[in-house]
Amino acid sequence: MLTQKMPWSEQPSFDLKAYLEERANLVNQWLKANLPVPEGPHAPVIEAMRYSTLCGGKRVRPLLLMAAADAVGAKGPDFLAIASAIECIHTYSLIHDDLPAMDDDELRRGQPTCHKVFGEAIAILAGDALLNYAFEILSSTHVLQSNIPVEVLIRAIGVISRASGVLGMVGGQAADVIMEGRTVDEETLNFIHNHKTGALIRACVESGAILGQGSEEQVEALRRFGASLGMLFQIKDDLLDVEGDEALLGKKVGKDAKRSKATYPALFGIEKTKQKAKELLSMCISDLEGFGKEADPLRAISHYVVQRRR
Amino acid sequence: MLTQKMPWSEQPSFDLKAYLEERANLVNQWLKANLPVPEGPHAPVIEAMRYSTLCGGKRVRPLLLMAAADAVGAKGPDFLAIASAIECIHTYSLIHDDLPAMDDDELRRGQPTCHKVFGEAIAILAGDALLNYAFEILSSTHVLQSNIPVEVLIRAIGVISRASGVLGMVGGQAADVIMEGRTVDEETLNFIHNHKTGALIRACVESGAILGQGSEEQVEALRRFGASLGMLFQIKDDLLDVEGDEALLGKKVGKDAKRSKATYPALFGIEKTKQKAKELLSMCISDLEGFGKEADPLRAISHYVVQRRR
Repeated sequence: MLTQKMPWSEQPSFDLKAYLEERANLVNQWLKANLPVPEGPHAPVIEAMRYSTLCGGKRVRPLLLMAAADAVGAKGPDFLAIASAIECIHTYSLIHDDLPAMDDDELRRGQPTCHKVFGEAIAILAGDALLNYAFEILSSTHVLQSNIPVEVLIRAIGVISRASGVLGMVGGQAADVIMEGRTVDEETLNFIHNHKTGALIRACVESGAILGQGSEEQVEALRRFGASLGMLFQIKDDLLDVEGDEALLGKKVGKDAKRSKATYPALFGIEKTKQKAKELLSMCISDLEGFGKEADPLRAISHYVVQRRR
Repeated sequence: MLTQKMPWSEQPSFDLKAYLEERANLVNQWLKANLPVPEGPHAPVIEAMRYSTLCGGKRVRPLLLMAAADAVGAKGPDFLAIASAIECIHTYSLIHDDLPAMDDDELRRGQPTCHKVFGEAIAILAGDALLNYAFEILSSTHVLQSNIPVEVLIRAIGVISRASGVLGMVGGQAADVIMEGRTVDEETLNFIHNHKTGALIRACVESGAILGQGSEEQVEALRRFGASLGMLFQIKDDLLDVEGDEALLGKKVGKDAKRSKATYPALFGIEKTKQKAKELLSMCISDLEGFGKEADPLRAISHYVVQRRR
């Protein structure tokens, strides 16, 4: 088992639970206030956007973006709108992944999936709308009236858009769909994980560092950290699908095996997968060696990722 | 019938056919060279992106963006990458519209639809990938290394993203899906047309004017022009679905009536719809009154929109 002790700090100087809760609440409030309001003949698609975005979720990706900005000495919450935009991208990907033509899931974040509530057509459109809405936010007055230099903003948009597209998350999801039921080697499994989950997590950390105007060395170090963390996150997801508690997770477990999905436990067994997670956690912590106390949230989140039960 | 004579010019000073062909070729070449190359375990989704984007299409939207830049005195082809990004957004919307859960179409641009060739899952992902790819292009070095000031670029991204999202194209498509089979009044029909087709066309013209660094008055005049043209475009599409030639159109005709879709001919009859088109064409031409010869391409495109047979 992974240790609960946080090796970078002897005293409990950093209250992760309070930090996570406070920031997740900021994201929830921002999304609630700034997602469109359901009215007009297209109201159901707006309801669907709000339903899937506001019905829970750990908000790991926006937290990471803000924590990466913290790590380079900026104020994470200054990037709340951009962080929330990333949650829109993440939610769109969940809605589309859950569709009957894709993973055909009925439960997500403890609630019926979007297409179960609103039908397939509206779910497809709600996903499209959320992906697009992320870029609406990124080019909105919310962001333009903040103090982020435009050159910095457009660089972050580039990082985020490349990570969520066909050379990132969409590519990973496509490979996952294509390989379903086939025997997958380690290289292909790494490709799927690196792209499907890893790319957006890496982009959160990298864009947080860019937005916080860290040095190029800091951006590069956090990009490496994001890559390790993304892989760690997916491996833990794989483990939760084998060992997790359905009620806590808010989604069905055992579905990867049922659909012959490529996973680490399937390829290497549970013990070797846990060992891999341990190594990745060490890599995360060592990637942060050049950073001071400002990176404590990122360190704490790394531990949280492996310890989480949902 | 609408006249073939172009009222703003006595002599045939402007060769629309050559202009359209030349610019459409530029767009085709740009997309062919700059869409991702199919390789890796996700190759099929890239093939699907290329299949749907490169298998024909009139390229009206990119042409409009470039022609609007021309109209304010800039060089349209300087914005070729951005114009091509809009074609990616348009193509994504066609792929998703054609899905079984949506319009369930088998033919598009004279070829089997994306999901007929690649399956539903890959078609959903190819659409997602193309929408996202548009924003990848808009924040890419292609665009950043051109001479467009970043402030201007980000303003254009805002216009484009709002037009393609839930308050624009996605909202219109959602309303269309929701209203299918129901009796629709003029207000709702206008909403659907204004959003589903109108919003992106208006955004092409407006963002072309912004990118070409026209004055605020010019941007506003072209926004109005774009609104009239967008409505004209959709009304002509409605007419083609009643009167058009399947072989020329490259898609089935009569499908709106078959699916009890809200259309102008269904609500007002064919003759009144043609009258409406005539009025909208006049509005387009008068919206351009303050512009000189530089707006001839936009004038010519307005006539083309009503005269086109596909």
